[in-house]
Amino acid sequence: MPHYAKTDFPVWEVRRFLEPGPIVLVSSAWKGRTNIMTIGWYTVMEFQPSLVGCVISEANHSFEMIRRSRECVINVPTVDLAATVVRIGNSSGRDIDKFAELDLTPRPGAVVQAPLVEECYASFECRLADASQVRKYNFFVFQVVKAHVATKPKLPKTIHYRGDGEFMLSGPATRQYRRLFRKDML
Amino acid sequence: MPHYAKTDFPVWEVRRFLEPGPIVLVSSAWKGRTNIMTIGWYTVMEFQPSLVGCVISEANHSFEMIRRSRECVINVPTVDLAATVVRIGNSSGRDIDKFAELDLTPRPGAVVQAPLVEECYASFECRLADASQVRKYNFFVFQVVKAHVATKPKLPKTIHYRGDGEFMLSGPATRQYRRLFRKDML
Repeated sequence: MPHYAKTDFPVWEVRRFLEPGPIVLVSSAWKGRTNIMTIGWYTVMEFQPSLVGCVISEANHSFEMIRRSRECVINVPTVDLAATVVRIGNSSGRDIDKFAELDLTPRPGAVVQAPLVEECYASFECRLADASQVRKYNFFVFQVVKAHVATKPKLPKTIHYRGDGEFMLSGPATRQYRRLFRKDML
Repeated sequence: MPHYAKTDFPVWEVRRFLEPGPIVLVSSAWKGRTNIMTIGWYTVMEFQPSLVGCVISEANHSFEMIRRSRECVINVPTVDLAATVVRIGNSSGRDIDKFAELDLTPRPGAVVQAPLVEECYASFECRLADASQVRKYNFFVFQVVKAHVATKPKLPKTIHYRGDGEFMLSGPATRQYRRLFRKDML
């Protein structure tokens, strides 16, 4: 299992790790219990306030925990956690304590009650900002209120879900097109 | 410039190309003019109907074109189009005809008036399904009504934006974790 030493990161820059589209683990806490789920349907929505919209299906045990606690942590796992990511998606918090059974380490957040996943590259503490689209789309708009990112490596090796049990692994990053950007677009 | 021979693809499976999170090109048409913009803030929201939510900033010329025509096409470019993707983001449809000036080929859609971008790996024709979150978040919910995907390669080499002029290039796909999935999760 990877262990990442994380440090404070500006909340308005979480797009650097979320916009590329990796699978993320959403952790929550409610009435003394914790849970984790896997999601791939989310999007950055704003820099400041730092907003992220997430589809969290009502079929998941996490749905009510997050709706009631109005908090969660969005964690970015790397490829060395891929088998665990699948196991998180396979199981339900109704039946098991996922942190305990999957050997994951819950760490207290700085702001929210939901636990950070120690083994993830980055963890973004979130408060529910807008639940108006939950009934229609299971769509939660969260505000990232505190961000923690590993100091190394600079580029996490992330996993991106393609459906049907298939992952795309992240490749290298390139800055070769940067000179083409208009200055005010950067 | 790449030219992809595309064929019909099931609309409920567009997640295979969108969920991994590539930068996409959104094309539109209104009053006899066309336009293209680059976006990275979007998410799959439902399989059937096939829904995709997109943040399209009101600062963009495309915003009003899409809001009024209630249509667009979401196109998935590959890395050989990266410089063009940046140039699309740099320029405004107020000033130039992007298809003409950037040597892109508009192709008629089967359902919508907005043009497909011939040089992209996949093109998803969309109708605006819900504009209720446009004023608050510039967030458009589209329904994919027709999908076109290249017959080869099986895996497109996509570009994923990290901010600050930096792209992550997609890496290989792996099915090595597929056996770990519960059957009903596939």
